[in-house]
Amino acid sequence: MTDRLLNQIKFIMEADKLKNVERRNLITDMSRFENTAEHSWHFALMAMTLYEYAADDVNLSRVIKMAILHDLVEVYAGDTFAFDEAGYESKAQRENDAADKLYSLLPPEQAIEFRGLWQEFEKMETADALYAAAIDVLHPALHNAKTLDHPEHPWAKFGVTSTQIYNRLAPVKTAMPELWELVEEVVADAIEKGAVIAR
Amino acid sequence: MTDRLLNQIKFIMEADKLKNVERRNLITDMSRFENTAEHSWHFALMAMTLYEYAADDVNLSRVIKMAILHDLVEVYAGDTFAFDEAGYESKAQRENDAADKLYSLLPPEQAIEFRGLWQEFEKMETADALYAAAIDVLHPALHNAKTLDHPEHPWAKFGVTSTQIYNRLAPVKTAMPELWELVEEVVADAIEKGAVIAR
Repeated sequence: MTDRLLNQIKFIMEADKLKNVERRNLITDMSRFENTAEHSWHFALMAMTLYEYAADDVNLSRVIKMAILHDLVEVYAGDTFAFDEAGYESKAQRENDAADKLYSLLPPEQAIEFRGLWQEFEKMETADALYAAAIDVLHPALHNAKTLDHPEHPWAKFGVTSTQIYNRLAPVKTAMPELWELVEEVVADAIEKGAVIAR
Repeated sequence: MTDRLLNQIKFIMEADKLKNVERRNLITDMSRFENTAEHSWHFALMAMTLYEYAADDVNLSRVIKMAILHDLVEVYAGDTFAFDEAGYESKAQRENDAADKLYSLLPPEQAIEFRGLWQEFEKMETADALYAAAIDVLHPALHNAKTLDHPEHPWAKFGVTSTQIYNRLAPVKTAMPELWELVEEVVADAIEKGAVIAR
């Protein structure tokens, strides 16, 4: 076996750590928090299922690849909660260091391809990245809408306001406008049930 | 919002149950068993990373979609252990019933597309399905190779023989022959450490 193959296998095994990266949202039966590997799979499934609502001309294959790769750096950098402003300040540096470490296992041209898809996703400039960003933020919102009764619900726990949610979910309005009504319903319901502050 | 969209969202939320379907293989830190959502994500990542070793002309986008969808029926049918012969007898019927129930949530043309990819995967006849099948069986084997010390290791626990493993992993030999040496090393190491019976 070549070193090239052995290092690709190492990369694959290193990625296994994503299954231990805990996110702030619960799975819908409220038995536990979700991990990032599960989120990445669900993101890919959502992108496939809701593709017809993409406002722009989107390359679904590229978006699904983004879904699989988009949080890989969390194997070293951990998950940064969407409404944690302090965490967001250091996020870019932590994740770049993680990408240096992780992608050094891959052959250079493959590292460039995978890292490039992740960076395109992060920048949210292309149609593919915008659609991916919309799904990425809509996914936990759907989970949060289903788990409002849980004492560790992230919106209630961190005193999240409706404005913060609308700002966070703004890519949905741009990239899949037909789903904005759903977002508004989710927020209205969460306000009514006391999990979100109307402000 | 249309009924079409609401039912697609229901389908997506129903799929969340895959995160509670426990498999027989451990995650590599041996802290717990893997679930099927995690496996599906890792399968997709492996298909992307090892694509250059596909023996035939493979459409990677289709394979990644297969990875995301290939075990969805387990939300109702549960996971069937690879070496459980009795379970395999009822597997096809249980999974078809599950597919009827799950895919009825989707618009007909989308149900046909998703179910068609799953059925193509199950039949293992096309180049795409064969490459997908190879990754699907190689993935838990790599986990098993890393977790030989665990008392609940599936190979040791169920008295699995080297012949059973080679038969199970046969798609690797056909669809990605350069990885067969890795399979042989995994089996030899497992025999040496007493987790697999050489027979």
